[in-house]
Amino acid sequence: MVINSENPYLYSLKIRNTKFIQIMDQIKQYIEENKERFLEELFGLIRIPSISSISDHKDDMIKCAEHWKTLLLEAGVDKAEVMPTAGNPVVYGEKIIDPSKPTVLVYGHYDVMPVDPLELWKSPPFEPEIRDGKIWARGADDDKGQSFMHAKAFEFMVKKDLLPCNVKFMIEGEEEIGSVNLGDFCDEHKELLKADVILVSDTGMIAADIPTITTGLRGLAYWQVEVTGPNRDLHSGIFGGAVANPINVLAKMISEMMDEQNKVTIPGFYDDVLEVSAEERAKLGEAPFDEEEYKKALDVKALKGEAGFTTNEHTGIRPSFDICGIWGGYTGEGAKTVLPSKAYAKISSRLVPNQDHEKIAQMFKEHFESIAPDYVKVHVESLHGGQAYVCPIDLPAYKAAEKAYEATFGRVPVPVRSGGSIPIISTFEEKLGVKSLLMGFGLESDAIHSPNENYPLENFFKGIETIPYFYKYFAEMEK
Amino acid sequence: MVINSENPYLYSLKIRNTKFIQIMDQIKQYIEENKERFLEELFGLIRIPSISSISDHKDDMIKCAEHWKTLLLEAGVDKAEVMPTAGNPVVYGEKIIDPSKPTVLVYGHYDVMPVDPLELWKSPPFEPEIRDGKIWARGADDDKGQSFMHAKAFEFMVKKDLLPCNVKFMIEGEEEIGSVNLGDFCDEHKELLKADVILVSDTGMIAADIPTITTGLRGLAYWQVEVTGPNRDLHSGIFGGAVANPINVLAKMISEMMDEQNKVTIPGFYDDVLEVSAEERAKLGEAPFDEEEYKKALDVKALKGEAGFTTNEHTGIRPSFDICGIWGGYTGEGAKTVLPSKAYAKISSRLVPNQDHEKIAQMFKEHFESIAPDYVKVHVESLHGGQAYVCPIDLPAYKAAEKAYEATFGRVPVPVRSGGSIPIISTFEEKLGVKSLLMGFGLESDAIHSPNENYPLENFFKGIETIPYFYKYFAEMEK
Repeated sequence: MVINSENPYLYSLKIRNTKFIQIMDQIKQYIEENKERFLEELFGLIRIPSISSISDHKDDMIKCAEHWKTLLLEAGVDKAEVMPTAGNPVVYGEKIIDPSKPTVLVYGHYDVMPVDPLELWKSPPFEPEIRDGKIWARGADDDKGQSFMHAKAFEFMVKKDLLPCNVKFMIEGEEEIGSVNLGDFCDEHKELLKADVILVSDTGMIAADIPTITTGLRGLAYWQVEVTGPNRDLHSGIFGGAVANPINVLAKMISEMMDEQNKVTIPGFYDDVLEVSAEERAKLGEAPFDEEEYKKALDVKALKGEAGFTTNEHTGIRPSFDICGIWGGYTGEGAKTVLPSKAYAKISSRLVPNQDHEKIAQMFKEHFESIAPDYVKVHVESLHGGQAYVCPIDLPAYKAAEKAYEATFGRVPVPVRSGGSIPIISTFEEKLGVKSLLMGFGLESDAIHSPNENYPLENFFKGIETIPYFYKYFAEMEK
Repeated sequence: MVINSENPYLYSLKIRNTKFIQIMDQIKQYIEENKERFLEELFGLIRIPSISSISDHKDDMIKCAEHWKTLLLEAGVDKAEVMPTAGNPVVYGEKIIDPSKPTVLVYGHYDVMPVDPLELWKSPPFEPEIRDGKIWARGADDDKGQSFMHAKAFEFMVKKDLLPCNVKFMIEGEEEIGSVNLGDFCDEHKELLKADVILVSDTGMIAADIPTITTGLRGLAYWQVEVTGPNRDLHSGIFGGAVANPINVLAKMISEMMDEQNKVTIPGFYDDVLEVSAEERAKLGEAPFDEEEYKKALDVKALKGEAGFTTNEHTGIRPSFDICGIWGGYTGEGAKTVLPSKAYAKISSRLVPNQDHEKIAQMFKEHFESIAPDYVKVHVESLHGGQAYVCPIDLPAYKAAEKAYEATFGRVPVPVRSGGSIPIISTFEEKLGVKSLLMGFGLESDAIHSPNENYPLENFFKGIETIPYFYKYFAEMEK
């Protein structure tokens, strides 16, 4: 991943663009001169155990937000503030160089996931340590390491007087618990958060040497269903064979939700799916993928996806239908016979752009109730939902990012539609009317959300190096 | 249920059979004179909390067995013994009046079910109390109350010198935990347990005024299945749509086990089912049954059973296929997304006479494995099994019981095929080569296995009254 100065591609760029060379030399040198301090500052952030899902850490959340405020001020914002929400506060900072110039809003989060099981960590999760060229700690990547790259890239541009546009920072403390208050925060501070693009580093790269822009996120609908047969648990001998068993019925109803083509059978389910153009499918198909390796890593003999699409398309551009949980009857040790009264399932569907999660939620409810046979009662509850997100690859910000990556990685980034959901990204679009650009520098091996989370120093510094180019090209395009 | 001396049916019997009148008058009088003592003796048995499934009660099991031995000796057996097994001991007693005469082996059990939830009991479970004409206590019916009727009926016959045949008692202490050691006990004591019929009171009557003989018990096969998809729980966004979800797959596999006719689809499953004659089906159909009441009591709008059979036939003479438990993925509160690695189910099938449980167990395993798609791994474990049992209604003992009930209830008993399983009954047939006759005096309202178990005094005394007639008619037939 080291930039080879003999790279003929870079060489041709150099010839073309002298100012580019200036930034390039300067940022590399700046990182080299300040890297110990950068790490020490990041470690200070990491050492605060800001676990949002555990209420014992309430004080740490405040402490971490205040610490971020200080770091932003030190990096060069004109003002910074810890702003209240109904939950954990949001850290806001800004540097407005000229109101007529374009504005980039950097989004990140200072909260982290829990650390259980603690015994699997090789070094304590909140005592960051460098081993094998990586930072080992909870939050090293997600998202303290990734969001802090933006603070340091910004610092460089301010110090060197290279900042070409306005910058705002919004660092929240509830991403890992669903950004529960950030939608309201956006509603309340629409003017303050006004921007031309939202820049986010909270995703990953498909490989260490392949820069990646996440251009799509799936939406989500999530239900809990309850199927009731008889009004009490029955003796499976006395009643078995005559009375419908709600587990058998639930199993049948679930099996009817997908057809032989692995298509969801809810009428109208695919009606709003935005078909992806042949051109974009071809581009998405360029991402290197080894199906045999994929199967081997999961230890499965075969995959199972919607007919007519590739594996990456199954997770990237097509909706899914999964039972996340199921339970009913006797689940303890040994053989207890019972014909239970109730059976339950938690069901989720990942949605793609233009499928409205509320519409789909209602569609499922009506369909599931309609296929219930009259020997059971069915109750469907919608538990959660979020819209899908798509970043068009012809968006100016996307083009700017492409050029930025070219400058530092020596190759054009690959657009990737992620199967996952970051509901706040579509909320930003809905509430603020601004697209987000997901420039992630993480790797799958970073083990985010797991024990031994880590972040390679190379990725951390590469991020700091790449971000200023994005500003440069973005400001040029938006002029 | 009181015998009316003006009953014209009984009157005609009286004319025909003077000795019958003698027994009848004597047993009623004997009960009247001794009922306080009978109850006090039964209460002594009930007060010992002989819960076989809780190891803390180990000493109570011994105490209860010893107490039974004393009660049998007091009732008039020649010898009684507490005999060891690998688990709780068996109480054995006998009175051999003439080795050339027929022998009745009375089977019962002194162990009881646990009493949780204790707070639902209106009076303490091991402090028997009489309220509203019923005995309230754990074991009042199942099976201390029912088995003790045999001790007292025997005592009457001995005291009045009316015993027409040899009697053996075998009272075990592990019925509620599956009679785990009684099969071996039968193997070891074949000679000692030699008999012409086994007499059991551990079942019920379909109504308080309808004497009932249980002529069939279903067998049982019980499996646990494990379906494994990917080798670890996956992010349902990153992988959902491309990787088979083991819960979806398990649901589909379960749904394929039954067809539209509600028949089990395992090839060969029905091959060995003994079809019941039209004549016997007609007789079974005589049992009063109100389908609307049945549905109302269960709060279901419709029933679901194998095409071509009635509700009572579904549970009585046809096999069933029920999921007793299912679990997998996230089953806690709220909406957690996951594509789980594994899904499990506990599956049971009630079997009918001539279906061998081991053969069926193997058949299911092979079929379930064969329908597993190649994107999952399936593991099937057989957890439990027992053979079905049938008592032909032309068996001499059945005919004797019919006459006995006629004498005391004034009506012919109804044969009932119970959907439940008492595996030890078929084990007796297999190990000892002897048929069992199930003369039960319990009612559904007795709440056996539940809080507030009870046994009406009327049923208790009616049982004691009826049993001597069985001996009389049985001995006459076997002469």
